Amino acid sequence: MPTVKLVPEDDPNPLVQEVFRDIKATKKIDRVPAIWRALATNPEHLRLCWTRLKAIMAPGKLDLLTKEIIALAVSVTNSCRYCINSHTAATQKLGLDAEALGEALAVVGLYNQMNKLADAYQVDPDILPRGSGG
Amino acid sequence: MPTVKLVPEDDPNPLVQEVFRDIKATKKIDRVPAIWRALATNPEHLRLCWTRLKAIMAPGKLDLLTKEIIALAVSVTNSCRYCINSHTAATQKLGLDAEALGEALAVVGLYNQMNKLADAYQVDPDILPRGSGG
Amino acid sequence: MPTVKLVPEDDPNPLVQEVFRDIKATKKIDRVPAIWRALATNPEHLRLCWTRLKAIMAPGKLDLLTKEIIALAVSVTNSCRYCINSHTAATQKLGLDAEALGEALAVVGLYNQMNKLADAYQVDPDILPRGSGG
Amino acid sequence: MPTVKLVPEDDPNPLVQEVFRDIKATKKIDRVPAIWRALATNPEHLRLCWTRLKAIMAPGKLDLLTKEIIALAVSVTNSCRYCINSHTAATQKLGLDAEALGEALAVVGLYNQMNKLADAYQVDPDILPRGSGG
Amino acid sequence: MPTVKLVPEDDPNPLVQEVFRDIKATKKIDRVPAIWRALATNPEHLRLCWTRLKAIMAPGKLDLLTKEIIALAVSVTNSCRYCINSHTAATQKLGLDAEALGEALAVVGLYNQMNKLADAYQVDPDILPRGSGG
Amino acid sequence: MPTVKLVPEDDPNPLVQEVFRDIKATKKIDRVPAIWRALATNPEHLRLCWTRLKAIMAPGKLDLLTKEIIALAVSVTNSCRYCINSHTAATQKLGLDAEALGEALAVVGLYNQMNKLADAYQVDPDILPRGSGG
Repeated sequence: MPTVKLVPEDDPNPLVQEVFRDIKATKKIDRVPAIWRALATNPEHLRLCWTRLKAIMAPGKLDLLTKEIIALAVSVTNSCRYCINSHTAATQKLGLDAEALGEALAVVGLYNQMNKLADAYQVDPDILPRGSGG
Repeated sequence: MPTVKLVPEDDPNPLVQEVFRDIKATKKIDRVPAIWRALATNPEHLRLCWTRLKAIMAPGKLDLLTKEIIALAVSVTNSCRYCINSHTAATQKLGLDAEALGEALAVVGLYNQMNKLADAYQVDPDILPRGSGG
Repeated sequence: MPTVKLVPEDDPNPLVQEVFRDIKATKKIDRVPAIWRALATNPEHLRLCWTRLKAIMAPGKLDLLTKEIIALAVSVTNSCRYCINSHTAATQKLGLDAEALGEALAVVGLYNQMNKLADAYQVDPDILPRGSGG
Repeated sequence: MPTVKLVPEDDPNPLVQEVFRDIKATKKIDRVPAIWRALATNPEHLRLCWTRLKAIMAPGKLDLLTKEIIALAVSVTNSCRYCINSHTAATQKLGLDAEALGEALAVVGLYNQMNKLADAYQVDPDILPRGSGG
Repeated sequence: MPTVKLVPEDDPNPLVQEVFRDIKATKKIDRVPAIWRALATNPEHLRLCWTRLKAIMAPGKLDLLTKEIIALAVSVTNSCRYCINSHTAATQKLGLDAEALGEALAVVGLYNQMNKLADAYQVDPDILPRGSGG
Repeated sequence: MPTVKLVPEDDPNPLVQEVFRDIKATKKIDRVPAIWRALATNPEHLRLCWTRLKAIMAPGKLDLLTKEIIALAVSVTNSCRYCINSHTAATQKLGLDAEALGEALAVVGLYNQMNKLADAYQVDPDILPRGSGG
C-alpha cells in the first residue's frame, strides 16, 4: 500500500494536469502510472522528475530498447519491485522475448557476482579507460 | 592492495595454466587481469567463474556491446571500482565514445533515483509483464 | 510472513517483559511493534538493540524530527519496506506533511543518482572536510 | 583516476560555459568541482543534472543544513567516497561540529542495522502512515 | 507474481528435464523450487546456474551449515525476500534454532552498521591480511 | 584520508580512555584501530558501538571463526574496503587459509548473483521456515 494518498488523475492543480497529460501522450497510455500519482503530492518535484526522465529516455546515441535494458539492469541490482515489473513489461513490448530476457538477466547476475569478488579481493584496476587521465 | 598474494602468471598448477591461457586467447590480451590471478588462489573456483563468464558473455540474442553496457550499469550501481574501470574500457574499445557513455550513465543515474522514489512511496506495480502469471 | 514465530506480548521471560514495557512507555504506544517481537527470539539481542536505539534516538545536538528524517533517508536508500512505513508514519506524526515529505524524498532521490554518477566517473574528492588529516 | 578526460574549466562549448558559471556563482566557489567537469563530457546531461540539483537543494520547507544531512546519510548508505567527502565538508561549513556529525552518523549506522534486521525477520508493517490508502 | 510464466515441472525440453531431475535428487525434494522454473525460460542459463551452485555448495573446507549461514548473511544484506526465506529454512533444517539464528543475525546487523561507519569516516585499513602484497 | 581528525590514543577524556583500554585488552593488540579513533569524536557513540560489538562477537552458540566469516560476507556484500581488510585478516589469524577463503567467497559471490536473479523474476517464496506464522 502506498505511504501517501495517490493524487487522483483529475486533480485540478494545473501543473499536475499538464504533467499527467504529457505522460499519457508521450507513453501512449490511458492511465497515469501509480509512481507519478505519488510524486504529484509535491507538484514541483513531479515536474522535475518527469521532464528529466522524458529527456534522458528519448532515443539518442542509444536506442530505446538499450535504454530500457539498462533501466532493468539497474532496477534488478537495486531490487526495486515496482521498477522491475515496469521495465520487464517495457522490454517485452519492445520485442525482447523470455529467452532473450534470460540472456540479459544472466549478464546482470554474473556481474553482481563478479563485482563482489573484485571487491572481496581488493584488486586494483589493470585496464584503464583510454580517455582517463584528466 | 589485494587481500591475497596474486598467483603468478606462470604458476605450475595445470588447471590454473589452462584457464590463464584461455583467458588470454579469448580476450586477445597478453597479461592475465588481476581479478583472475586473485581467483586462482582457489583453482576450482577460478575455473567455475571463467567458464561461466565466457559462456554468458558470448554474443547470442544480445550483442557484445549491449552486454558490456549491462555489465557497466550493474558495476556502477554496485559502485565496484575495478569493474567500472574494466567495463568502461571495454565499451570504449567497442566504439562507445564519451558522449554516448554519458548518455548510458544518464540512464543509470536516472533509475538509481527513480528506483528509490518508487520504494519510498511503496507503490504497487501497475504494469505487469505479459508473460507473468506462472 | 515473518520467518520466526513472533514472541507474544505477554511472554514470561523477565528480560523480554522489561524491554517490552520500556518500548511501550518510551514510545507511548499500546502494542509492541512486530520487529521487537521478532528480535525477542534472542532476548539478549533484543536488549542490546533496544537500549542502543533508545540512546541514539534521544534528542541531543539534533532534534527528533531530523533524526527520523535521517532514518527515513537510510531506509529508502536500503529499500526496507517495514522501516519506510514506520519512519514515514513517524515523520508525519512529528508534523512533516506530504509536500514536505516530497521535498525530503527529492533530496534522497537526487543523491542516489549523484552518488552513482560520481562513482561511475571515478572522480577524486576535491573538497576535503576541514577536520580531516588525523 | 577519473574514467574520462575531465572537461577543462575554460571549455568553449557555450552550454558548458553557462552551467560552469552558474555552479561557481551559486556555490560561491572559484573552481568547478570534478564531478561537473566529468558530466560535461555530455553537455546536455550536465545541464539536466545541474538545474535539477539547484532546484531541489534550494531551501523550501526544509532548510539547507537538513538537506545536506540527508545527502550525507544517503551517500554514507551508498558508500560513495566522493560524495561523503563533499557533504561532510558542506555540513561542517554550515555549522555541524564533529560531535554533532557523530550524532548524525550514529543514526545512519543504527538504521543500516535495523533495516537489515527488519528484512531478515520479514516482519510486516504495523504502523501505516496516516496518508496511505490512495 | 513472477515476471515470466514459470516453466512447468514436466516441460519436455531434455536439458530442462535433466536439470530439474538433478535438483530434486540432490536436494531430496519432490517439487522444483520456483526460482529454477523461472530460470528454465533460458535453459542454458538454468544449466549454468545449477551446475555452479551444486559445485560451490558441496561441502569442502567449509561444511554445509557454514555455507548456508553465509548465504543467509548475503541474502539479508541484499534484502532478498525469496532467498531469506529459503536460507532461513535451510539453516533451521540443519539444526540452527531461533536463538542461534538471532545470534547469527546479530552479527549481520552489527556489520551492516559498522561497514557504514567505517565508510562514513573514510578510515584507511590498519590491519592488512598477511597474504596481501601480490 | 579520514573525514575527521582521529582522536589520539592518549586522549584525556576518561570515557575514551576506558574504551580504548578495553579494545586493546580484549583484542590483545597494541594500537587502537583507526575506526575507533574516528568514533571517539563522539565519546558516547564510541562506547555504545564498542560495548555492543564486544557482546555480539563473544562466542556463544556460534564460534568466533563463524562470526568473522559472517562479518566478512556482509562486508564484501557492502563493498566496505576497511572492513574487508580487517575481517580477511581476522579469518586468516583464526586459521582460514587462502583456498578456504576462496571457498567462502565463492558462496558470497554465488548468492550475490542468485539474490538478484530471484528478485529479477519476482518469484514468491516456496519454502517457508518452520517457525514462521507468528
